[in-house]
Amino acid sequence: MDAAEFRKRGKEMVDYVADYLEKIEKRQVFPDVEPGYLRTLIPDCAPQDPESFEDVFKDIEKIIMPGVTHWHSPYFFAYFPSASSFPALLADMLCGGIGCVGFSWAASPACTELETVMLDWLGKMINLPEEFLAGKDGQGGGVIQGSASEATLVALLAARTKTIRRVQSEKPELTEADIMGRLVAYTSDQAHSSVERAALIGGVKIKSVPSDDTFAVCGSALKKVLDEDKASGLIPFFFCATLGTTPCCSFDKLLELGPICIKENIWMHIDAAYAGSAFICPEFRHLLNGVEFADSFNFNPHKWLLVNFDCSAMWVKKRSDLIGAFKLEPLYLQHQHQESGNFIHWQIPLGRRFRSLKLWFVLRMYGVTGLQEHIRKHVRLSHQFEHLVLQDERFEICAEVVLGLVCFRLKGSNELNKALLESINEAKKIHLVPCHLREKFVLRFAICSRTVESTHVKFAWQHISQLATDLILGAGGKVEL
Amino acid sequence: MDAAEFRKRGKEMVDYVADYLEKIEKRQVFPDVEPGYLRTLIPDCAPQDPESFEDVFKDIEKIIMPGVTHWHSPYFFAYFPSASSFPALLADMLCGGIGCVGFSWAASPACTELETVMLDWLGKMINLPEEFLAGKDGQGGGVIQGSASEATLVALLAARTKTIRRVQSEKPELTEADIMGRLVAYTSDQAHSSVERAALIGGVKIKSVPSDDTFAVCGSALKKVLDEDKASGLIPFFFCATLGTTPCCSFDKLLELGPICIKENIWMHIDAAYAGSAFICPEFRHLLNGVEFADSFNFNPHKWLLVNFDCSAMWVKKRSDLIGAFKLEPLYLQHQHQESGNFIHWQIPLGRRFRSLKLWFVLRMYGVTGLQEHIRKHVRLSHQFEHLVLQDERFEICAEVVLGLVCFRLKGSNELNKALLESINEAKKIHLVPCHLREKFVLRFAICSRTVESTHVKFAWQHISQLATDLILGAGGKVEL
Repeated sequence: MDAAEFRKRGKEMVDYVADYLEKIEKRQVFPDVEPGYLRTLIPDCAPQDPESFEDVFKDIEKIIMPGVTHWHSPYFFAYFPSASSFPALLADMLCGGIGCVGFSWAASPACTELETVMLDWLGKMINLPEEFLAGKDGQGGGVIQGSASEATLVALLAARTKTIRRVQSEKPELTEADIMGRLVAYTSDQAHSSVERAALIGGVKIKSVPSDDTFAVCGSALKKVLDEDKASGLIPFFFCATLGTTPCCSFDKLLELGPICIKENIWMHIDAAYAGSAFICPEFRHLLNGVEFADSFNFNPHKWLLVNFDCSAMWVKKRSDLIGAFKLEPLYLQHQHQESGNFIHWQIPLGRRFRSLKLWFVLRMYGVTGLQEHIRKHVRLSHQFEHLVLQDERFEICAEVVLGLVCFRLKGSNELNKALLESINEAKKIHLVPCHLREKFVLRFAICSRTVESTHVKFAWQHISQLATDLILGAGGKVEL
Repeated sequence: MDAAEFRKRGKEMVDYVADYLEKIEKRQVFPDVEPGYLRTLIPDCAPQDPESFEDVFKDIEKIIMPGVTHWHSPYFFAYFPSASSFPALLADMLCGGIGCVGFSWAASPACTELETVMLDWLGKMINLPEEFLAGKDGQGGGVIQGSASEATLVALLAARTKTIRRVQSEKPELTEADIMGRLVAYTSDQAHSSVERAALIGGVKIKSVPSDDTFAVCGSALKKVLDEDKASGLIPFFFCATLGTTPCCSFDKLLELGPICIKENIWMHIDAAYAGSAFICPEFRHLLNGVEFADSFNFNPHKWLLVNFDCSAMWVKKRSDLIGAFKLEPLYLQHQHQESGNFIHWQIPLGRRFRSLKLWFVLRMYGVTGLQEHIRKHVRLSHQFEHLVLQDERFEICAEVVLGLVCFRLKGSNELNKALLESINEAKKIHLVPCHLREKFVLRFAICSRTVESTHVKFAWQHISQLATDLILGAGGKVEL
C-alpha cells in the first residue's frame, strides 16, 4: 500500500470509526460468541500473497465485531471506564505516523520534552505539590507509564533499591539476599491485585492491611502490622495507598498514613488509577490531601480523562530514586545530552511511543473546564443511579458513592445476587461485573462511556429492577430478602 | 469534538501523515534543537477553555516537528529499524476506535482470540516448533508484549518461580530467600542491557558469559561459568541467548547451548528482537536452529516486520509456566470462560490494547512474500554498504554482516572514529549511533527505513567517506591509520 492508497483507505477508516462510535448504542454491548469462535472463521496460516484492503476491511464486521465487548457503549457499566475521545484518536494517528521510539532525549527530543511538560500541566491541574513537578530545575517530575501496574512496580523497585542501600550502610554485615528476605511491602486488603503482583515480581513479601468499615486503611491499622513485623525482625519498606479502590472506590486515609510512612522510612506510593482524574475538580481535590507525604503518585488519564489507552501518569518527588534503581547505559544509548531526560530509567520497557501527544491534544481541545464537565456528569449519573436504588426497598447500597461507581445488591443471599448478575449479563442489554465486599457478593455499576446519559442510567435501573422482580417471582416468592 | 468534526479532522490528519511520510526525505533527519527547547514554546499550564483543532494542528509543525528525530527517513541508519507501514497505521486507527481493554477473554473475546491465532500464524511463518503454538489444544502459545524487555522479564520471572518450587521440593530446609540469594541468570557479554535489568528487577544475580571472537556465546563458555558457579553453591536457573545482538548482530550458538540448558535444568529464553523477522525467509531460518531447546522465544515485529510499535511477539512451550508465576485473580476479573485465555497472567501490565489487529492487517496486506521482499531488500542494502566500505582501504568491517547491520570503522584510533561519528552526526545529513566491540569504538550502519533505497546508501557512503577525508586532511595528515 502506497501513500496514495493510504489517503483513500485512511479516510474510509476514519468514517468507519466515526460510524462505529456514533451508532455504538445499537450494538449489543456484550458479544454472543463462545470461546474459540474466531479460529474457525479464519485460515490456519498467513496468506502467501497480498490480499486487498477491501478483503481485510469486510472481515472487520464479519470476524472481529461479533466478538467485541463494546467498552464505549452507553450500556457498558463494567470494570472502570476506558477513556476515548476524538482528540485522543487524532493524536494517536499522528503518533503512529511519526513512529519514533522515544527512549532517550536524542531518540526524539520532542517526545521526551513534551511528556515532561504535559506531566507538569497535568500535575498542576490536580494541584500536586510543587515537589512532584519537573519545572525547569526541579528534582521531581512525571512520566507516562503503560499502566498503573507498571507504575506500582517501578515505585516498589525504587523503594527496594533505596532501602537495601540504606540498610546495607547501617548494617554492613547483612547481604543483599538477607535484606531482600526481610523486606515487607503493605497495601490495603481492598487494593488492586497488581500491587500483590508487583511484590511477587520484585521478590519481596507483601501483607494486606485490614481496611475499616468504610473499606479504607486508617493509620492505626497500618501501625499495628508495622509494629508486629518490626518486632519479628522484618523490614517494612513500601506502602501502596489506594485512592478509589477497584471494588468500591474507597479512599485510604492519607493524612494518617503519610506521617507514619515518613517516620518509619517507608516509601508511600499512591495508586489513584481511576479516581485521580476527579481531582481536577476543586470539589474532589480534598480526597488527595496527604499526597504531600508520598514519594510517588499515579493515576490513569486513560481511564477517566478522555485520553485513550495507554496513558498512565506517574510522578515522583525524586527522579534520582528511580534512575538509581535502574541505571544501566550501554554506548548505543548514550548521547550528548545525557541529563536532559532519558525515560529509559523510569520504566520497564525500553521503547516508548509518543504518547504525550494524546495528552496535549485532549488537554487543549477540551480545556480544563471541558474535562471537569465530563467528570461531573459521570458523578451526577452515579448519584442518579444511587437514588434509584435507594427508592427500591429490596436493594441496598454497599459503600458510599463518592465518584462514578455504585456498589449495590439485593438484600438477601449471595446466591440471589449471583443469580441477578447472571440474568443481567445473559440478557446482554447492559454489562456489569461483581465484586466482594467482605463476605458479600456485590454488583458494581460504574459510569463508563463518554456518551452515557441519564436516559441510559434510567433504562439500566428499570431493566435491573425488572430482572430482580422476575427472579424473585420465578423462585415462587421463596426468595429470602 | 463530535463525530462530524472527527470525520473532517481525521481526514486532514490522514493527509498530514501521508504527506509527512511521502516527503520525509526532505526533512533533516536529526533535529537542531537544544535540551529544553520545547518548554519555552508552550504555556506553563493547560488552557481553561477549549482550543480549536486548527490551533493545535498548526503547532505540530511549529513545536513538535522541529524536535523530532525522523526514524522513517531513508537517511536514518541509527539503532535498529522501528517498523512502520500503512496497513499497520490503519489497524491502529481501528484499534483506537474500538478502544477495548483486553485483559481477559470476556473483556473482549475478539481481542484475546485474534492475538492467539495471529501468534500461531507468525510462529508458522518462522517455522517455530509445534510445541510453541497454541493450536486448538496445545500447551504452548504466543502473546504480544510491549517490548523485548518485558518478554525477557516475564521469562526470567517464570523461570525464577519454577526453579524456586523445584529447589524447595528437593531441599525443603531452604527458605525462598535462601534460594533467591543463590539464583544466577546468564547472558552474553554482548546482550542487550534489558537482560541485566530484568535480573535487577527480579532480584537475582546475573553474570555475563564471554562471547567468542565472532561475538557469539558458545557452549564451552557457558559450561565453564556454570561449573564454577555450581561448585560455589549457586543455582543457575536462566540463560538468555541472543540472536542478533544489538552491537553487531551476532548469533549465540543455540545448538551447543540448548542441550546444556536442558541438562542443567536452566530455562533458555531466546531474544531475537531484531533478527527474528528475518526467519520468515528460508535462507535465514537456519539461524534459528536450536530453538527447539528453548523454553521461550521472542522477536519484535515492531522492529523489522512492518508492524508499528508496540508489538513484541513472545512464545512459550508451556503456558502454565507463565500463569503459575503470576496467577492472582480477584473476583472483578473472573468470568465464565476462565480457561479461554487471560493474557493478564502473561505480562506485567493488566490493560492491553487490541494490538493483534496490526499483525492481522500487515500479514494479510503484505502477504508472506511481500514481507520477505522487505527483509531481503534490507539485507541486500547492507551488503551493498559493506562492499563500499571494503573498497576503501582506510576502513575495516568489524563483524560479519549477516542481516541489515554493518559495523565498520576507520583503521586507527578510537578517538579518530569518535571524531568521525561526531562529524557525521553534526552534519545531520544521515544519523548513526556507535557501539563498542571489545576495546574498539565502532560505527553502526543499520538499514532502517521501509523506503530506503540503493541511492540513499550510496549517498550515505559518499558522505561518510568525504567526512573521513576532511577529518584526516584537517588533522594535517597526522592521523594514524
